[in-house]
Formats: sequence, C-alpha cells, structure tokens
Amino acid sequence: MKTIKASLIGFGSVGQGVAKVLLRKQQELKLLGLDIKVVAIADSKTAAINLAGLNLEEILKRKESEGIVGDEKANGNEIILDIEHDLVIETTPTNIDTGGVGLLNMLTAFSKKRHVVTSNKGPLALRYRELESLASRSGCAFKFEATVGGAMPLLNLVRNTLAGNEVLSIEGIFNGTCNYILSRMMEEHATYELMLAEAQELGIAEKDPSYDVEGIDTACKLVILANAIFGMDVTYKDVSITGISRITPEALMLAEADGYVIKLIGEVSKNRIQVAPRLVPIGHPLAVGGTLNVASLQTDLAGPVIVVGRGAGSIETASAILSDIISIYKN
Amino acid sequence: MKTIKASLIGFGSVGQGVAKVLLRKQQELKLLGLDIKVVAIADSKTAAINLAGLNLEEILKRKESEGIVGDEKANGNEIILDIEHDLVIETTPTNIDTGGVGLLNMLTAFSKKRHVVTSNKGPLALRYRELESLASRSGCAFKFEATVGGAMPLLNLVRNTLAGNEVLSIEGIFNGTCNYILSRMMEEHATYELMLAEAQELGIAEKDPSYDVEGIDTACKLVILANAIFGMDVTYKDVSITGISRITPEALMLAEADGYVIKLIGEVSKNRIQVAPRLVPIGHPLAVGGTLNVASLQTDLAGPVIVVGRGAGSIETASAILSDIISIYKN
Repeated sequence: MKTIKASLIGFGSVGQGVAKVLLRKQQELKLLGLDIKVVAIADSKTAAINLAGLNLEEILKRKESEGIVGDEKANGNEIILDIEHDLVIETTPTNIDTGGVGLLNMLTAFSKKRHVVTSNKGPLALRYRELESLASRSGCAFKFEATVGGAMPLLNLVRNTLAGNEVLSIEGIFNGTCNYILSRMMEEHATYELMLAEAQELGIAEKDPSYDVEGIDTACKLVILANAIFGMDVTYKDVSITGISRITPEALMLAEADGYVIKLIGEVSKNRIQVAPRLVPIGHPLAVGGTLNVASLQTDLAGPVIVVGRGAGSIETASAILSDIISIYKN
Repeated sequence: MKTIKASLIGFGSVGQGVAKVLLRKQQELKLLGLDIKVVAIADSKTAAINLAGLNLEEILKRKESEGIVGDEKANGNEIILDIEHDLVIETTPTNIDTGGVGLLNMLTAFSKKRHVVTSNKGPLALRYRELESLASRSGCAFKFEATVGGAMPLLNLVRNTLAGNEVLSIEGIFNGTCNYILSRMMEEHATYELMLAEAQELGIAEKDPSYDVEGIDTACKLVILANAIFGMDVTYKDVSITGISRITPEALMLAEADGYVIKLIGEVSKNRIQVAPRLVPIGHPLAVGGTLNVASLQTDLAGPVIVVGRGAGSIETASAILSDIISIYKN
C-alpha cells in the first residue's frame, strides 16, 4: 500500500467534488494499493491541517454550514511551501490575466518537488512551457485532464489509449454553456439574450458570462491542447476568437432549413488555432446538444476518433482529477 | 533503450498492418525508449526467423509477391515454444467454436512467460478467465484492445483514462459490416440482400457473412467487455443474439418516419448481455452511420462517455495493437 499525502488547494465546487470522490472511492483506491491522505485543505479564507489525514466528511459539512474549512489562517501557498506532502490538488478559480494564485501554487509545488494535479486552466493557458519544464526538471508529475472538457477523456486518451498515433487535428465543442445556449436557441427559436438568461437561472451560465460566451474558455482549452498535444508554445492571446453573442435566431433557423446546426467550434492543428461559430450538419458527430462537450480527433493510424462527455460539473471534474491521481501512482 | 523481441503470429490483413505500423513508427518508438525487433513471423504455411531482427519491408514484399513470409516450415505455435522472445503478437483468424490455433498460441505464450497482445476474439470469447488467470500467474501482460472495436478506444479507455470510475453499462455498435448494411438500406430504401451484396463487393462483408450479420461478432465483443470490465465469467453462448438479416426496408422507412434509425446494438451490464436490432433516435450519439463503431458508457463519476471510431481495417487494428505494446513497456 502506498500512502500519499495530498493537499487540496481551493475548496469550491471542484475541490468539494474531489473530497466527495476521495471519500466515496476509498475502498476502490485501497484495492489499487493507494491510501490517499488529505493532510491540508485551503479555501480562500481558511485552512484545515492534520498531518495524520483530515476527516473529509466533517470538513465538507463545516464548509456547507459555516462556509469555511477550518480554523487555521494559513493560505494555500503557505501550505504547499510548509507542510510536508507529496501531491498538490490545485482547484482554485481560473484567472487568465495573471494566472492568479494557481500559477504561484503550481510553481511553488514544483519547487518543493510535489506532484500537481489540477483543473485550473489559467496558469496553463499563460505559462504552459515554463510549468511543464519546471515539473520535468523537478521530477514531478504535472497532470491536467480536468482542464479540458471535464469528464470527457482527451489528454490521457491521446497519451495512453492512442499511444503511437500522431494527432493531426482536434476540433470540438469545449464549452457546455455555449452549447446549451445555442441548442436552446435552436429548439425554442428564441434570442441569445433570452436563452442566456435561462442558462443563468439554471446555474449553467455565470452572472458575467463573457468568459464562456465570448469563446475565451474554449480558447484556453485549445491552448492547452496545442501545447500539450501538438508541442506548440502558445498562449490564449495567439488564438483567433469569435464568440456566440451575435448569433440570431434567424441565422439558426436558416441553418436548420438547410440541415445544419450552429455550434461554437474550437479547432487546433499545427497550422491553426481558432474558436468560431460554425455550421455543423445535423447528424454529424459534432452536433451534440445540451451541455455536452465533444472532440473529434484526426489521427494518422486510428483515423477519426470522437469522444463525447460532460465538460463540467463538480463530480465529473473530480473524476478526471481522480484518474490523473491514479495514473501518477499506480505504476 | 529497451530491446523487445517479438513474434508476429498470423500474417493476414492485421498481421501485415502491424508490420507496416512497426516500420512506420520505428523512430517514434525509439523516442519512447523502445526498440522492437520482430524475430519471427508465421503465416499459415511458412515462417521467417532471425534472432537479430527480421527485415519487415522485405517480408511484406515477399508476402505480397509470393504469398508466403519465408522458407522455414515452423508453425506459429512452434515459434512461440522454441524461439527465445518477450512478446507474442497474435493475429491469427478468429475461431469461435474451438478458439483455433489462437487459443493454443496464447496458452503456450503464457506457459513460456511471454506477453501477449492480440486482435483475436475467439479465444477470449470462449476461455477468458482461464487465459487471464494464466497470464496473471505467469506475470505476463495480456492485452486485447484490438479485439473490441478496432481503433475505437474502449478497454484501455476504461482502465486508464477513466480509472476510478465504475462502469455501469456499455451499449453500442460493435460491427461495422452490420452498420454499413443498415445505413445503406436506410439511404437507398433497399433490401437487406441488395445491400449485403454491395458490402460484399466492397470487401466490407465476407462471402459467408453470417458471423457478422447474425450478431455473433458483436456477441463475442460483448463477452470480452463483460469479462474484462464487468468481472463476469461468460462465453458467447450466454448472450441473447438477434441479427439483422430479417430487417426489411419497410421497417426502416417506418422508423425513419418517426425520427428513428435501426441499429444492431450490443448491450452489456451486470444483469444483461444481449445483441439485437434497436430503434435509435436520429441525432442520438449512437446513430452513427457508415462502418463506424460507437460505444456509450454509463459511469458513476464521469456520467455518460461516448466514443466513436473505426472498428476494423488493417492499420486501424494495428494501431490498437501498437498502443497495447507501448502500454506494456513504457513504465
């Protein structure tokens, strides 16, 4: 049995999902030979620390009832620096202007030779090469399946399941909020504004939706794919981006009459990295509805491979984080 | 650099695909630290053996011009028994009544402590538990991604990319021949017999198509999934099977009028293992056309995950074999 001491930095929806999944899968992880002890959890205000392993159930309850995880005042970065542990699970909110605390947390983790598993796109969309090379020089794993498409398998799919293949291009729908709004505009012949409001009511869109609807989130994911799969060195500023806010119900109805839907498609290959609304034939594998994500890969040996899955959600994102953790330790 | 001595047993379409892919990916494999030397190749009549590594290009040419691989009279099983090597790539034709030479080859390989990577469904559909436990007792890897869905990622997807998830059910289209015939019947409003004849002309269906069109091939794949993913102990005789040969153009047209297509769907979960034609809504992720394969997985954490890919083809199947080989040696 390997005992792994982990910190959980960030305790919003994804961080809480990770705690729930670790609780729920304790037995299965032990069958795989892994005993994962969370020795520290930090949210934006407080922290809980116990070198023998925290009681995740209690902390989840306290977060729900009191809005905090513990009584310690240490912040996440101090925990990464000072507490002896093996693995940092980084789930702080994404900041794509500066990389936010996530960037500092990852840099600190690698400097202390701790592995990093993250769902935080910002640092990777800004400073991928630096992070990757620092991880590699420190002998640390750096895993981020959860950053692209949530529970939709993609990065590990390419690296493991399709090992030996060269990926020639990837295109897909990488933002569930945009997919929901466009799918509903089509179904209801309704305006963008109306369906955005519906998505906001349902918690599918943020109060300020620009990060999603302007295509920035999709662009960040393409940047991660470009750097991690295509070996490029780009940031999200290199992406040509058009969002969905100017799409009209009339455009969707015209498309439908010709047998098409309109989807916000992200596309990346060696020569091209762009986000734009595109016509997709009804019945085409990319024409998935609701909040689903989809990616269509062209490969040199396997030919076309398409994956569909949930791009967001607390447990779904935690699922990708769990698979990353297992992949680090199971060999 | 790890040097791996491999035998290639079976040199039909898939075996030749493996030779071509190993040639094409020599450099990439060396970058991964793998030097794969094929020391023996056997087809049904002849063999070629060279302990320093065979010239694959020459053997491919000879097979094409003369129909044989070499001048040796040793059969595949003798090679596995007598030639010192690490890995058996087993691509002999499937026999689902007895397991054929493939079964003997796998048993012999494990008894000689050689790893097995295979595309041969028959032995797994008949004697999975025995093979698996023999492999495990011998400390050998036993990998068979290519047996289910060709280049469509499925077994390794579940074991690696979705690690930590429990798979609750899998349903999908696992036979490209049936999918082609049904898709074409729908497009042309034509009879089963006519579209079968077209598929035979194009080389998509065999002269005796019963293995595919009666659902037996799909059943074998479900059995492999049931045993390998759901931990069951079944053979293809435990599967309830209905094929596609009685589907009429009228049934397809009635379905279409209601917004459905008819697909041969294989379904497996703890309680159920069956192959039958089913109505699938147009636009549903399972409603893929042509010769594509598709699998829809329900999982406890990631939710629904769908994969689409080419279920057959020489290079595509070899792609799955290559990924299996890499997965054995890269750690």
